[in-house]
Formats: sequence, C-alpha cells, structure tokens
Amino acid sequence: MEEKELGIVVQKFGGSSVANVARIRNVAGIVAETRKKGKDVVVVVSAMGDTTDHLVELAHEISSLPPRREMDMLLSTGEQVSSALLAMAIMEQGQPAISLTGQQVGIITDSMHTKAKIVDIDQDRIKSELGKGNIVVVAGFQGVNGQNDITTLGRGGSDTTAVAVAAALGAELCEIYTDVDGVYTADPRCVVNARKLDEITYDEMLELASMGAGVLQPRSVECAKLNGVDLCVLSSFNRVEGTYVREGLKMEKKVVVRGVAKDENVAKIAIMKVPDTPGVAFKVFDSLSQEGINVDMIIQSVNSDNFNDILFTINKDDLNRARRILEKIVLEIGAKGVIDDADVAKISIVGAGVASTPGVAAQMFGALAESNINIQAISTSELKISCLVARSAIYRAMQAVHDKFALSNEGDHEVVIR
Amino acid sequence: MEEKELGIVVQKFGGSSVANVARIRNVAGIVAETRKKGKDVVVVVSAMGDTTDHLVELAHEISSLPPRREMDMLLSTGEQVSSALLAMAIMEQGQPAISLTGQQVGIITDSMHTKAKIVDIDQDRIKSELGKGNIVVVAGFQGVNGQNDITTLGRGGSDTTAVAVAAALGAELCEIYTDVDGVYTADPRCVVNARKLDEITYDEMLELASMGAGVLQPRSVECAKLNGVDLCVLSSFNRVEGTYVREGLKMEKKVVVRGVAKDENVAKIAIMKVPDTPGVAFKVFDSLSQEGINVDMIIQSVNSDNFNDILFTINKDDLNRARRILEKIVLEIGAKGVIDDADVAKISIVGAGVASTPGVAAQMFGALAESNINIQAISTSELKISCLVARSAIYRAMQAVHDKFALSNEGDHEVVIR
Repeated sequence: MEEKELGIVVQKFGGSSVANVARIRNVAGIVAETRKKGKDVVVVVSAMGDTTDHLVELAHEISSLPPRREMDMLLSTGEQVSSALLAMAIMEQGQPAISLTGQQVGIITDSMHTKAKIVDIDQDRIKSELGKGNIVVVAGFQGVNGQNDITTLGRGGSDTTAVAVAAALGAELCEIYTDVDGVYTADPRCVVNARKLDEITYDEMLELASMGAGVLQPRSVECAKLNGVDLCVLSSFNRVEGTYVREGLKMEKKVVVRGVAKDENVAKIAIMKVPDTPGVAFKVFDSLSQEGINVDMIIQSVNSDNFNDILFTINKDDLNRARRILEKIVLEIGAKGVIDDADVAKISIVGAGVASTPGVAAQMFGALAESNINIQAISTSELKISCLVARSAIYRAMQAVHDKFALSNEGDHEVVIR
Repeated sequence: MEEKELGIVVQKFGGSSVANVARIRNVAGIVAETRKKGKDVVVVVSAMGDTTDHLVELAHEISSLPPRREMDMLLSTGEQVSSALLAMAIMEQGQPAISLTGQQVGIITDSMHTKAKIVDIDQDRIKSELGKGNIVVVAGFQGVNGQNDITTLGRGGSDTTAVAVAAALGAELCEIYTDVDGVYTADPRCVVNARKLDEITYDEMLELASMGAGVLQPRSVECAKLNGVDLCVLSSFNRVEGTYVREGLKMEKKVVVRGVAKDENVAKIAIMKVPDTPGVAFKVFDSLSQEGINVDMIIQSVNSDNFNDILFTINKDDLNRARRILEKIVLEIGAKGVIDDADVAKISIVGAGVASTPGVAAQMFGALAESNINIQAISTSELKISCLVARSAIYRAMQAVHDKFALSNEGDHEVVIR
C-alpha cells in the first residue's frame, strides 16, 4: 500500500550469486524481471566467487605486507569484472544496461585504504543513466578518495555500497541477494524446526549479525538504520519470499524473542586468585584492549579473603596472543595463574522484548537446566541474553531454547511468557 | 654523449614478462636497477600472461557479440591487476612506487571502444608522483573518453600507451621489453644465421611490423616516429643489448637491405577471364574493400582477346568472406570463375635503400631462381620488395635471400650490390 509504482529498487548480489556464467545469467533474469515490473533498477555486485581471495593470495606471494593503496587497486578489479559481465548478461535479456565503477558512480570515501568509509555519493551519473532507461550495474566494495585513488570498503563492503546507494537515491527497497533465503529464528543446520522470519528490526539484525549469523554485515545494517533504508534478505537461487529488515513500526506485532544465535568462536579465560586491590581489573583489561583484543562476559567472583577469580571470554582467534599478555600480567599483579578453555560456545536469544519483558532470562536458564546444560557465564544487553555453555552442548542448547520460546510457531509468540 | 643524467625513461613490459609472480619480481628488479642509475622511471605494463584472452572467453560465453563499452570495462582490469602487483614488487625492492589506471593518469581517448585512439595525456598526476620520488606504474592499453567511460586501445595497446606517455613527458628513451631480445635480420626460427640489429629506422620497423614480425605494433611505431620518441626493443628474460628504433640520422651507416620478413597468413585469388571493359576492376576491389578486406599484390595479365586474368592476395582470415563476395561478382561481370590458393607465402626484403638502389630487386629474384623457387607475384614499395612463393618453399626462400644480401655480416652491407 505504500509501494510506489515507479520507484527505484537496489538489488545487491554476493559473490556466490555471480560465481560463474550460468549464475550471472540467472541474476540477469532476476534483474530484468524487476525492470519489467516498471521499477528503476540499480544493481550492486560483488566479485565472482573466490576472485578476491585469489587476488589476495597473489599479493601475499609478492609481499608479506602489501601496501594498502595497492591492495585496493588490485582488489577493486574483481567487482569491475563482475559488473561488466552482468551488464552484458542483462543486455542479452533485451534490457539496456551499463556498468559503472565506484569512481564512475562518484562514491567518495575517506582515505582509509582496505577499510574506507563512504562520505558522499554523487548521484548525477546514476540518475542520468536511469533517465536514459538503463539498468545501472555498480561495482560494489569500492570508491575513490579525494585524490582519485581507488579505495575498498572492507569485508562485506558490497552490502554497504548497496545500502549507501539506496539511501542516496531514496530507493524504496534494497534487496540483498545471498545464498540463504532469509533470516531464521536459528541456524537451520542446528535447529531442525527453525523458521524463516518475515521481518526483523535493524537492532535485532545487528545483534544477530554480531553473533556471527553472517547474513548481513553489521556495518550495512547500521547504515540502513541510520538512513531508514528498508532491506530485504533473499536468495538468488531459491525464488521465495525473503526476510525484511526494517523499523519496528511496520511490524505487525511486537515479538519478545526473535531468534536464537550461537557463537562457537569463543574461548574462556580465568585468572585465579587475583589480589583484591584497586586497579587490578583495569590492568588486565587495559592490556588486552591495547592489543586490540575484545573481552566479553566478565564475571568476578570472590574466591576467598582478599582474592577474586576473574573469568571472561574472548574471540578464539585471539587466544594465543591473550595468553602471552596475561602470563606477564599475572606475575605483575601477583595472581595465582591463568587457565583457559576453548571448548565453550555462546548461545544468545535476541529480540526487542528481551530486556523489557520480565521472566525471559529465567525461561532461558530454565530451558538449559531442564536439558542438564551447565551455564558457565551470562551476559545481557538491551536486545540479547547470552549464556556460555560447553561446546559439546551447544546444539542441544539451541534446540532446547528454541523450543522453549516456541519460535517455530509463527505469530504465536505470546506463549513464550508462561 | 647525448644522454641526459636525470632524464625520464619509460619501460614497457608485455604480458609474458609479467605472466607470474616470479616474472613480476624479475621486472621489478629491472625497474629498480634503472631507478638506481638516477633515472625517473615510468613503467607501462600489460595484463599478466593470457588474462585478457580468458576475460574475452568469459564475455563470449555470456554474449556472442558483447557490447564494446562493457568489453573495455572488463578487459581494462587485466592491466590494473598487473600494475598493482608490479608496484608492490617494486616496493619490495625498496623503491617507492605507485600504480595508476589510465583514468588516473589522465589518458584521454576518443570513444571508439575496444580500439580507441589517444587524444591527450594529462601529465599532472604522473609528474606529481615522479616529483615525490615515486616510480609510476601505468596500467597499459586503456584510457577514458570525455564521458569518463573506460576505453581500450586495441591489440598492442600497451606499446601505444608507453610511446604516448614517453612523448608527453619528453622521455629520453622508451624501452619495450618483450620475449625476444631485439629485431633480427630475419626470424631466427627460419634463418639459422639471422643477426640481431643494433638499430633500425621507424619506417623499416613499420614495414617489418606490418609483415607480421610481431615485435612492435605498427601503431606504436607510427606514434614514436610522429613524436620523435627513441625506442629500444629488448628482452626482460635475457639482459643483453636490444635494438634501437630511431631516426636515420643517428645511424652509423646507410643500409640497403635491413632484413628479410615472411608472411604466411596470405591467400592468393585469381579471377579468370574477366571481360576487358572499364570499371570491372573497380567493381571487384570496391566490393572487397566495402567488406573491410584488404587486397595486396594485384596483377592483371592479358589472357586472350578482350579477356584478362586478375590475380591478387588477401589476408588468409578473410578468404571465406572473399569467396562469398566474389562468387556473386563473377556472375555480375561475366568472368569465367574464381580460384584460390592458401598454400602461398610472402617473402619481403625491407630497407631504406631498397627502392633507391639499382639492382636490389634483381638480386632478390636471382636468389629465388637459383633456389628453384617460382615467383607467383611481386609488389614493391619505397622500403620493401615482396614476392609471393609456394608456402612449402618459404623457409628455403628466406635463407636464400638472407644469404644473398649477406645479412649475417654486420657492417658489411656494401657487398649486397654486386
């Protein structure tokens, strides 16, 4: 009912959607179909399949630390190739099309090579091409800085390109085509009766994205939220309805728990018998943060008189570095020792009602207890409650919590608070 | 003695010179060495190995007739990749370097996509980078038209980029690195005692290039001649002196015959018993030229009263199209029929003295006669005498003519006129 008749739709296709000629043809079909519905279409495209990885490898064969400006020069070619091929494929479908690089579009970024941020998008060229009746195929992931040097936007940069272009053009919708057909109440590989969501808010999506749901880059969701761009996540392989990511206002009903997420890429660290003196915790966490190691789920418990145990989690990839740092710190602060455990996993429930609805946390803990799963740590935020459990129990934990909140029942979310 | 101490040298490296990481490193070494001699260096680079062919294949999988604008968008990425990798490799050698696309250099072309011509080069960016002490690595083969759309310069375009950049910057020398170490008196695969030339004039080089010697694109030689750019053809694999291509003034002595070239990509066509009426030859050759078929070595001989035979040669690739055109024409003009023969080859002697020195043609014909090789057609120009012979005799013909003019004897060219 709000749908404009001749609005602009931005469609973004990821690397797997354009991995070979047959898939590029398939994408051209989706684009042409949208155009035939009377929409102006702007397409944003990633590099084909593993092109980017291959280019990164080449660079690392030449240099152990390739200069970032040259990396951007190199990597931006992947999207230029796929944009040109897709424009050709769309024209084969009888629809006029033109490919544009980030430079040609006028995507102006800062100068932080390999992780640049978009500062402005010049709309003249895109609008002029749309005015000529062209479908515009934009090479994602790239822009130019004020010196006309090519920059790239970092991981998931094409999503950000799509959202930023949609915001600049006032598009009615930004469709993100990927290899899954939407956002689920839980990873369907973990939870047998996981259900695809019709819609989800930006904030919920952000929490899921940061939990490693991997469907959308957090940055592009933030950009969509900031600019009020309606997103839709859907599959280029399986033509079914996807999941809308948009402001809560459009939601039919307020949902307490939207989904269950897991993160297996965590490690637990415990510092034993830390002297209970001021500044000790600061010393520990400051040392870690100075090395760029993020800490999550901190628990400090009194062990005995004047001694505490400090327990926290970090990203598993940081474990070796954290060990080296903490071995020194432990001596400095006079603690007894450090132990760590990488056989843990984090389970989280995410939803706008999680913090504001009484009893939600208790129900989650209850579900885990009923399944004999021990909770090693807990953390909460506005939209999320997370529990650390044994890694071996994570699948059982997911299923138990998913069942507890009856997430497989569409539109029946009131049952969650019993 | 004329060498400037701090001049600019342009070095162009072809696709085989940068086909893999090891070769890119080798090229970086050559470039860094030149820089250490105190020269400002601008490098122009082709796409790695068969990258361009691979991209062309991809495009043809998508479209039987890919739009030329999109082809340029696609193909220009090959040189962008190699320029970035080469800049990285040069920096690994401890020399500051920066890669630039055609757009960034400011290589402005016309809008003839896939075979654009350079109309202007903005020198600001290159000069600014040289001023900062950078080695500038330019992606060859490409530019942008007035609408900021990427164009490519057609086959051998990187040679043209190099010469045009050298001309714009007033470079002291433009070195063209390839997989042969210079220009020879004949193809060494045909003539055992072929000798590498120290120098050759632009015009002689043009005649050899158009004969399929394949070392330099005729277009880049023309551009060098027009702008007085000294060229040097040399090998990136075998570090020996190459061949200079420059104006005759710098030559030590005037040479009658510079080299012997062959062209096996020819076909002979004969139209039999053509009525001897005005306008008939026009009709034949106009029809062919309208289809873009070039004709060479035309011989018209009187067959009998009021009938002529017309014999000429064309590029072998055009033979099928020529047959179709001529079948119609033969009926229109009332000739007896058309026969063709693709088992022929052209042998040519090239040199500034060929036309002006008496007896040269006679010596060539004599060399062929002494070897029992029949001459099927002859054509001559300012710098060249060509004979059409049986394809099976071409290697023998090359050796015989090369021996006759004693081309393997350096600086002993007077002997040729006996």
